[in-house]
Amino acid sequence: MTRQIVKVENKLFNSFFSIFHQAQLLSTFCCALILFSPTISSAQNKNQMVRLAKIKIDSAQLEKYKAALKEGIETAVRVEPGVITLFAVYDKNDPTNVTVLEVYADVAAYKAHIETPHFKKYKSITKDMVKSLELVDVDPIAFATKPKQK
Amino acid sequence: MTRQIVKVENKLFNSFFSIFHQAQLLSTFCCALILFSPTISSAQNKNQMVRLAKIKIDSAQLEKYKAALKEGIETAVRVEPGVITLFAVYDKNDPTNVTVLEVYADVAAYKAHIETPHFKKYKSITKDMVKSLELVDVDPIAFATKPKQK
Repeated sequence: MTRQIVKVENKLFNSFFSIFHQAQLLSTFCCALILFSPTISSAQNKNQMVRLAKIKIDSAQLEKYKAALKEGIETAVRVEPGVITLFAVYDKNDPTNVTVLEVYADVAAYKAHIETPHFKKYKSITKDMVKSLELVDVDPIAFATKPKQK
Repeated sequence: MTRQIVKVENKLFNSFFSIFHQAQLLSTFCCALILFSPTISSAQNKNQMVRLAKIKIDSAQLEKYKAALKEGIETAVRVEPGVITLFAVYDKNDPTNVTVLEVYADVAAYKAHIETPHFKKYKSITKDMVKSLELVDVDPIAFATKPKQK
């Protein structure tokens, strides 16, 4: 009977360590991916849609425009799986010149994006703030960014 | 004796599930961080230097230029702690128009960048390929990107 108990113990310990070890490996692997991944690289996916939006803003409404754009961008990347990157900047010498770099997983993701409530809200709020809008389709050459900003 | 075996089994199963459950939770947490962490946001650091470089390339040397730029960008973000993001694209309608969005941790990081061997190599290789270069200092409005590209 004692041998039987020992056998049961061994069997249980073996499965325990085997499964625990696998879980531990997976956990370590995932953490390593977060902590040590040196760069995030896109531009690998041929289907990606990349674009520069060049936008001229009414100077009297610039602060309101920037707030609306910021909210729209952060919501889109947070809630839409197909919105990969949105990076908006304004010229220091002429803050009414805004440029947005846009990366979508594919054209379908872009089409879905412009039908979302947050995009429609952005368009509606900003329609009288935007004096002109030029959309330039581009292709990526290289995209490298640190995974965690300093 | 049977009760004893059952007790041993129960005890072992309880510790097994307790520790395995913890490992599983940790693993799930790490994976969730990777998969669902919604955005990487820079633009928080007031010291960051952000710029758009608008570059016109000799059409006959475009492919060589793109290769040199790609190598320079990937090296810089990999080896320089102060080079946060370099994103280069070319216009689909006119591939000789290249735009690079550059984010450095601060002005000192940029000054260090232009003294690196890889930057000097890029400048030397491409000096006869670049027809014009316009550097536009910008400030970020919003920067959101998925941590893992699709």
